Amino acid sequence: MSMSFSHQTLGQRVHFGAGNLGSDVSAAVQRLTARRVMLIASSSAASAADQLAEVLPVAHRFDGARQHVPAEDAEAAGRMAEQVDADLLVCVGGGSVIGLGKAVALGSKLPLIAAPTTYAGSEATNVWGITEQGRKTTGVDDAVLPRSVIYDVDLVATLSTSLSISSGLNALAHCVDSLWAPGADPLNAAWAEEAMRALALGLVQITENPGTGVDGPQQLQYGAYLAATAFASAGSGLHHKICHVLGGSFGLPHAQTHAVVLPYVLAFNLDAAPAAGDRIARALGGADALDALEQLRARIDAPRALKDLGLQEQDLQGAAAQVLDVVPASNPRGMDQDDAVRLLRAAWAGQDPSELRSHP
Amino acid sequence: MSMSFSHQTLGQRVHFGAGNLGSDVSAAVQRLTARRVMLIASSSAASAADQLAEVLPVAHRFDGARQHVPAEDAEAAGRMAEQVDADLLVCVGGGSVIGLGKAVALGSKLPLIAAPTTYAGSEATNVWGITEQGRKTTGVDDAVLPRSVIYDVDLVATLSTSLSISSGLNALAHCVDSLWAPGADPLNAAWAEEAMRALALGLVQITENPGTGVDGPQQLQYGAYLAATAFASAGSGLHHKICHVLGGSFGLPHAQTHAVVLPYVLAFNLDAAPAAGDRIARALGGADALDALEQLRARIDAPRALKDLGLQEQDLQGAAAQVLDVVPASNPRGMDQDDAVRLLRAAWAGQDPSELRSHP
Repeated sequence: MSMSFSHQTLGQRVHFGAGNLGSDVSAAVQRLTARRVMLIASSSAASAADQLAEVLPVAHRFDGARQHVPAEDAEAAGRMAEQVDADLLVCVGGGSVIGLGKAVALGSKLPLIAAPTTYAGSEATNVWGITEQGRKTTGVDDAVLPRSVIYDVDLVATLSTSLSISSGLNALAHCVDSLWAPGADPLNAAWAEEAMRALALGLVQITENPGTGVDGPQQLQYGAYLAATAFASAGSGLHHKICHVLGGSFGLPHAQTHAVVLPYVLAFNLDAAPAAGDRIARALGGADALDALEQLRARIDAPRALKDLGLQEQDLQGAAAQVLDVVPASNPRGMDQDDAVRLLRAAWAGQDPSELRSHP
Repeated sequence: MSMSFSHQTLGQRVHFGAGNLGSDVSAAVQRLTARRVMLIASSSAASAADQLAEVLPVAHRFDGARQHVPAEDAEAAGRMAEQVDADLLVCVGGGSVIGLGKAVALGSKLPLIAAPTTYAGSEATNVWGITEQGRKTTGVDDAVLPRSVIYDVDLVATLSTSLSISSGLNALAHCVDSLWAPGADPLNAAWAEEAMRALALGLVQITENPGTGVDGPQQLQYGAYLAATAFASAGSGLHHKICHVLGGSFGLPHAQTHAVVLPYVLAFNLDAAPAAGDRIARALGGADALDALEQLRARIDAPRALKDLGLQEQDLQGAAAQVLDVVPASNPRGMDQDDAVRLLRAAWAGQDPSELRSHP
């Protein structure tokens, strides 16, 4: 990897703990000397929001965040923040809630504090998105980066094992893809390596000891945070481009698609990206990156084939053509139509990914 | 290591390259829309400063930075910045120059850009220091953190091999100590691990191929940057407390003292800090952290004994008593007077450090 690069590190406070939601959010509110908080919460995080409402100076509570941040919601919430003279936004919930908070921060320049309840990672980035008439506009603005993030493992420890596995593998895909994405650099790669180590540990722990203790969820939370910092800085690589085609044009489910496709992209790129392979192998604890990923996937019983997720065999050629249009120039190995079909067919059938290696 | 922790990540742009000084500093100046730059340079960086003066809108150039940032220098430079109506400080030099820039930024709140010519790492921290009547006052303020840091390897590639080895080992000590310092946390440990890997690679390269190419110096520059981020966040551990006593009360030279003491502190703490040991071993490429450090030190012919640096045998008891007063509560292994004398005597004589292990 080139040692000539530019990197923007985002300034942010993070707090990891168990049962720390009320105390750490209160401390963050006091640090910002805020007096009129607009609390934005998802319905699934209602009890956490109730807990916060007891200890924070809440001027308004907004409970109705919907997926993909509809523009009318962002406007309504922004007007409300102005009406109640809010001086701080506090979000507790998943990507939709934090996304709504970011949309309000974008317009109002109000500071934002986030307490995530999933492993999606939006809280660690300066990326915002707003959906208007079915089209999602995204952008980058430091004003939407939460000043403080409070990770309370109690907020994720109740997620189901299967959802946690899919989300954890999705975060792992952020890490792997960040190693060869357009903005890949040594710092992103270092965060990704640390994240992969934590995610692998957490995934094994929640699979083998489901519902016992917070060690596994804490590793997943920590890994998902770092994965988001690496991915936000590096951008989308081949893996995310493929999954975007499969989700956008063929309606495949997000996290499971990532979980299936990852080893095939890794197999395709690995021999052309030895430094990335070293980091993955070291993080997952194996001699070879692909073998180590496959062993991890077997151990946690990850989903294995796109045909099980609804992709039809006759869609492979069309999907491959769409993928070819968006292969990043930074990808370490060139890809032609045959390569794209072979990769997608292998992932569709759940074949051994090692057949895609350039030096098998 | 506990997964309950708080961490402040400092927001900063970093640019690594070769021959990138003029272009990257110019771009940073334009990004801040600055029109009246105060350029602060060390005499050893005069030609780099000349190069910058040709491309930047320099309102004043301050060439006389002295060590330890004397208060009168900070005041004089601050008055000058006000007189010339400077809107940006650009520092090119080592710790003294960047320290002076930080002192001016502290008072004036002017933004700061740094181009370091050593491996000291001040550019990556929000710590300032000013010396008045022989006493150094230090503090932490985000206003002194450089907005952008331009690492041009051409600025360090001309440092002598012996100075580079001492400085690189000093940076390695930042990393090791950050693993058990009062503010140790998993994020600092991850940055430290990445830094140690780069520093070890760079140290071997500059020793075995002195004066050939920029690969070694680039690794040292990158490693020293990350070492500074980890150390600034984690604070001083046992190693730095010991070196502070040896330097402050017994006049031992800074970098060489760090280079000698490090394996003895590692040996003392290692068996009580297995997670730290894992990170060090992984970064240095060995099965055991102490063995790996000793192999690296042998390969680069690091200084080996405090008696060679001017410490007298009769000073050992007194130094040990001073060390005992400042052992951090966070240290993984308790230390009594006998322990402190044994550690210092072993480092004084250059004995095998493994005798200090708790489970040899």
